[in-house]
Amino acid sequence: MEHQYTAYDQELASLKDSILKMGGLVEELIFKSIESLKNRDRNLAKEVIKQDVAVDRLELEIDEQCINLIALRQPKAGDLRFITTGMRIATDLERIGDLAEDIAERSLELADQGPLKPLIDIPKMAELAQAVLRAVLDAFVNGDTAKLKGVWDKEREIDGLRDQVHDELISIMVKDSLSVPRAIPLLLISRHLERIADHATNIAEDVVFMVEAKVVKHGGGEKA
Amino acid sequence: MEHQYTAYDQELASLKDSILKMGGLVEELIFKSIESLKNRDRNLAKEVIKQDVAVDRLELEIDEQCINLIALRQPKAGDLRFITTGMRIATDLERIGDLAEDIAERSLELADQGPLKPLIDIPKMAELAQAVLRAVLDAFVNGDTAKLKGVWDKEREIDGLRDQVHDELISIMVKDSLSVPRAIPLLLISRHLERIADHATNIAEDVVFMVEAKVVKHGGGEKA
Repeated sequence: MEHQYTAYDQELASLKDSILKMGGLVEELIFKSIESLKNRDRNLAKEVIKQDVAVDRLELEIDEQCINLIALRQPKAGDLRFITTGMRIATDLERIGDLAEDIAERSLELADQGPLKPLIDIPKMAELAQAVLRAVLDAFVNGDTAKLKGVWDKEREIDGLRDQVHDELISIMVKDSLSVPRAIPLLLISRHLERIADHATNIAEDVVFMVEAKVVKHGGGEKA
Repeated sequence: MEHQYTAYDQELASLKDSILKMGGLVEELIFKSIESLKNRDRNLAKEVIKQDVAVDRLELEIDEQCINLIALRQPKAGDLRFITTGMRIATDLERIGDLAEDIAERSLELADQGPLKPLIDIPKMAELAQAVLRAVLDAFVNGDTAKLKGVWDKEREIDGLRDQVHDELISIMVKDSLSVPRAIPLLLISRHLERIADHATNIAEDVVFMVEAKVVKHGGGEKA
């Protein structure tokens, strides 16, 4: 920004901070939820469920910041896009937080049962999802779509892993019906992770819209 | 509105129309997706998948309407809340459309297989979800939270049915592992419906916020 640093600029910077804070917390929850699964760590899973409340609170704060900015500052063009994008990002981050909580709940269901199989694809999906989330938040704060490079490839990789996990678990269950109660939570976790990646790529699309003022959502533009 | 009918009023009315149109379409997709499941109707399922594109397009149109209204009309107080609520509702409706598409995809998977069991709870969940959606849209267009009566009870009923379907399908799969490929899509459909109801109650919370300018999200207020 070229003009003098004003209270308004500070409000915009504070909105950016809030979104980064929410993004960092949500990323932490994804990490912890998968750790709780890998280590059958009930306490960690419960911590995730508890911490999701803070995510919800941050969403409300960000909403309020955005609505106040719009109402009091009558932002135009780029600033208005930044603010409305901020609102959308907060919505997606809140949903990601919910999904991390869902994973933690599945992880609690599994904590008392013997492992079905070594976990390989699910932790990999989680790593990819976290990488996508980091990239999109980085792109948002820097207003730089170059940071989004690779995001859609990673999303496709996650989708592929989800299908792989799905097929593998179905065949395990068909072979041994007693595996069903342990397989279903894993199947759901792979879907939760895929949806986390979906929300993260929603954010990527919103950032492109913000930066380039063009819509790439719903196949409205090139995605690679 | 007491003042003279202006172009601005017309823009607000047109936004309301777009949201109602989107809501009507989404409700139709839920209905058709479940019909396609009940009747193993592949063509109807494919129709749902195709029609979801129109839902996506409507979301983009509504977003544009809202951003233009904010940028050009600098709405205040009630109008601003109405517009930002409109944006949020469009986001939730788009997700509901996606979930109806997910149901249609599961329904395609099942279309060639013999029925696992008579469908009772899933159609009931769908009816409840549609009723919730109708009520929240009605509340939105009339700015009347009295229309939301019963919405949270219905959501709880849907949650209960989801748990019931889940437990029942798990026990069917444990008893007969060959049922797994037919049971999993049903299990997922019951989750899709529960999430549809979640999105519909998100809208209910947004309408309360709009009307009463108080936040009931995330347990911030009474919900019954």
